[in-house]
Amino acid sequence: MTVRRVAVLGAGSWGTAFAKVLADAGREVSLWARRPEVAAAINDRHLNPDYLPGVELPGLLTATTNAAFALDGVDAVVLAVPSQTLRANLAGWRDLLPRGATLVSLAKGVELGTLKRMSEVVVEVAGVTPDQVAVVSGPNLAREIAAEEPTATVIACSDHDRAVALQHACTTGYFRSYTNTDVVGCELGGAGKNVIALATGMAAGMGFGDNTRASLITRGLAEVARLGGALGADPMTFAGLAGLGDLVATCSSPLSRNRTFGERLGRGESLAQAEAANHGQVAEGVKSCSSICELGARYGVELPIADAVRRVCHEGLSVAEMGKELISRAPRPE
Amino acid sequence: MTVRRVAVLGAGSWGTAFAKVLADAGREVSLWARRPEVAAAINDRHLNPDYLPGVELPGLLTATTNAAFALDGVDAVVLAVPSQTLRANLAGWRDLLPRGATLVSLAKGVELGTLKRMSEVVVEVAGVTPDQVAVVSGPNLAREIAAEEPTATVIACSDHDRAVALQHACTTGYFRSYTNTDVVGCELGGAGKNVIALATGMAAGMGFGDNTRASLITRGLAEVARLGGALGADPMTFAGLAGLGDLVATCSSPLSRNRTFGERLGRGESLAQAEAANHGQVAEGVKSCSSICELGARYGVELPIADAVRRVCHEGLSVAEMGKELISRAPRPE
Repeated sequence: MTVRRVAVLGAGSWGTAFAKVLADAGREVSLWARRPEVAAAINDRHLNPDYLPGVELPGLLTATTNAAFALDGVDAVVLAVPSQTLRANLAGWRDLLPRGATLVSLAKGVELGTLKRMSEVVVEVAGVTPDQVAVVSGPNLAREIAAEEPTATVIACSDHDRAVALQHACTTGYFRSYTNTDVVGCELGGAGKNVIALATGMAAGMGFGDNTRASLITRGLAEVARLGGALGADPMTFAGLAGLGDLVATCSSPLSRNRTFGERLGRGESLAQAEAANHGQVAEGVKSCSSICELGARYGVELPIADAVRRVCHEGLSVAEMGKELISRAPRPE
Repeated sequence: MTVRRVAVLGAGSWGTAFAKVLADAGREVSLWARRPEVAAAINDRHLNPDYLPGVELPGLLTATTNAAFALDGVDAVVLAVPSQTLRANLAGWRDLLPRGATLVSLAKGVELGTLKRMSEVVVEVAGVTPDQVAVVSGPNLAREIAAEEPTATVIACSDHDRAVALQHACTTGYFRSYTNTDVVGCELGGAGKNVIALATGMAAGMGFGDNTRASLITRGLAEVARLGGALGADPMTFAGLAGLGDLVATCSSPLSRNRTFGERLGRGESLAQAEAANHGQVAEGVKSCSSICELGARYGVELPIADAVRRVCHEGLSVAEMGKELISRAPRPE
C-alpha cells in the first residue's frame, strides 16, 4: 500500500504547505486550486503568494483547477478545504475519487447542525468505510512548516498500515510524523483547541500571564479529553501532538486567529467589534463552541470552559464574570 | 484534620507567594527566613523586596528567623528551600517538627547522587511515613500568583484527606487547587520540566517558532510520562497541571531561568558563557538532566530529548546536531 501519487484538494496555506511536505518527501503531488491565478502562480513561478508569500515550492508539485485531472490515478487524496464547506466540496468530487485511495482530512471542526466530525462527513459523502479515512493533526502552523522549521504531527487512521504508508509519504528532514489509530481523539483535539484558544486569548486580553494561560490550557484539555472519552477516544491521545501539541502551538502563536479574536473580547470589545477587526469573520471557535457544548450535553459531559466561552460569545456574559466563575467552582480532585 | 496554622520554611519568591496564598485563605502563617533583614521587612513593612518587589503581604503573615518559633504548634509545614539543599536544611529542623503535621514540599528536582525525589528525601530525613508528605506542583510562577492572577495547582498526597485539608487551606479568589494521590507523577513532572524547558529554549535560540516548541513540549512530556510510568506514576498525571500545566508555563515564560539558559546555548554560546550570564550559576535543568537520564537508564526507559540536552550540556554535542538527530529518528507510532 505505497503512496506514490497524491492529490491535495485546496490550495490555502495548510493545503499548500502539506503539498510541499509530500513533494519534499519525493511524492508526485497535484494540487487543486479553485482560482486559476493561484494554479498559474504555482505552475509558472513555484509560488502561492496569497497564502504562503515568499515560499519557493518544489518542482514535483504541480497545480490545476481541474479536480478530475488532479485525482487521476492517485493513491491518496488530501482534503484541505474549510470544515464547514467540506461536505459540499466533497459531494462534487465524489465520483472522481480513485477506488481504494486513502482519503486524508486536514480540516478541523465539528459540522454545525449534524455535530459530525470531519472523517464522519467524509465516510458519509464519499461512501467509503471508516478505515479508508485518515486525519492529520498536530502543532502545524502552515507558515512555519513551509519555512521548514522542525515539526511533529500525527497521522491517525483505524487502518494502521494505511497510516504507516502515509507516514512514509510525508517524512522529510523537517517534518516528523507519528501514527495513531485513534481518529476520534485526534479530530476532537483539533476541534476543541479553537475554543480553548479563544479562552486563553480572553485571559491575555484581561492582562493575565503565563500561569493563567497554562491553567486554562491544562483544564481546557482535560475537559476536551473527558468529552473525547465519552465519544470513544483514548484519553491519552489528548496528551499527544494532536491534543496538547496543537493546543500549545495555537494558544501561543500570534498567527492564531482564535487567540487574537479572544484577546479582543478580553480587552472589552464586543463580538461585532472583534468580527469587524477580523475581516468581517468570526473566529472558528466562536462557531465550534456551540457544537462542542451541544455534544457535551448529548453525552452528559461537563465542559465549564467551553460553556463559559459560549456564554461570552452568544449570551452576553462578561469576561470578568467568566473569570470569577471559573476560579470559584467547588474544589475537587484533578 | 483541619489546617489552621502553617509554617513556611524558606522566604524566597515561591515560599513567600505560597505563604501569602495561605494567609489570604485565612490561615495563620509564620514564615521562616534565613536572613534577619528579610524577616524584618516582612514584619515591619509587609514587604519582601528582594524576592517579590512591590507586593504587599497580608497581616496574617508574620516572619521569623527562629525555626522553632515558626514551627510551634502548626498543622502543616511547607518546605520551600532549593531541592539540592533540602536534605541539609531538614536535618536541622527535624526535632522541631510537630508530630503528625503534614509536611509539604514545594521543591522540584531529583537529588543528585541518590536519585531520590523530594518527598522521598523528606520521608527519609524526617522519619515519617509517606502518607504524611504532600507536594504542591503546577503552573506556578511566583510573581504572577503574588499579583493575584488566576492560577490552578495540584496538591498531591497519598492520604486523600490530608490533601483535601490542604486544599481548603489555600483556596482563595485567585488560587484554585485540585487534589491528586499521585505523588510520584507530580514530582517527576516538576523535575522533568526544567530539562524540557532547556530544550525549548535551545530551539528558540536557533530561531525556530511555535510548531517546534509545541512538538518539543509534547514529545518531552511523553518521555517524562514514560519514565513516570516505569516509576509507578499514573501517566494521566502528566496531562494535568503538575505535568503539562507546569511545563507550558515554564516553556513560555521569560521569567523561566531554564528556558533563558537554553536560549543562550541555542544561539551558540558555550555552557560557561551562559553560566556567566546567569549570575555564575547553571540552570537547574543542567543538573537534573543528568539525574533524569540516570533514572531512565536504571529503569530502561528511552529519553531522547533529555539525553540530547545532557549531551549538549555535558558532552559538547552542538545544538544543530541535536536538532538533526531528534527529527530524523526512525518513524514510529505516537
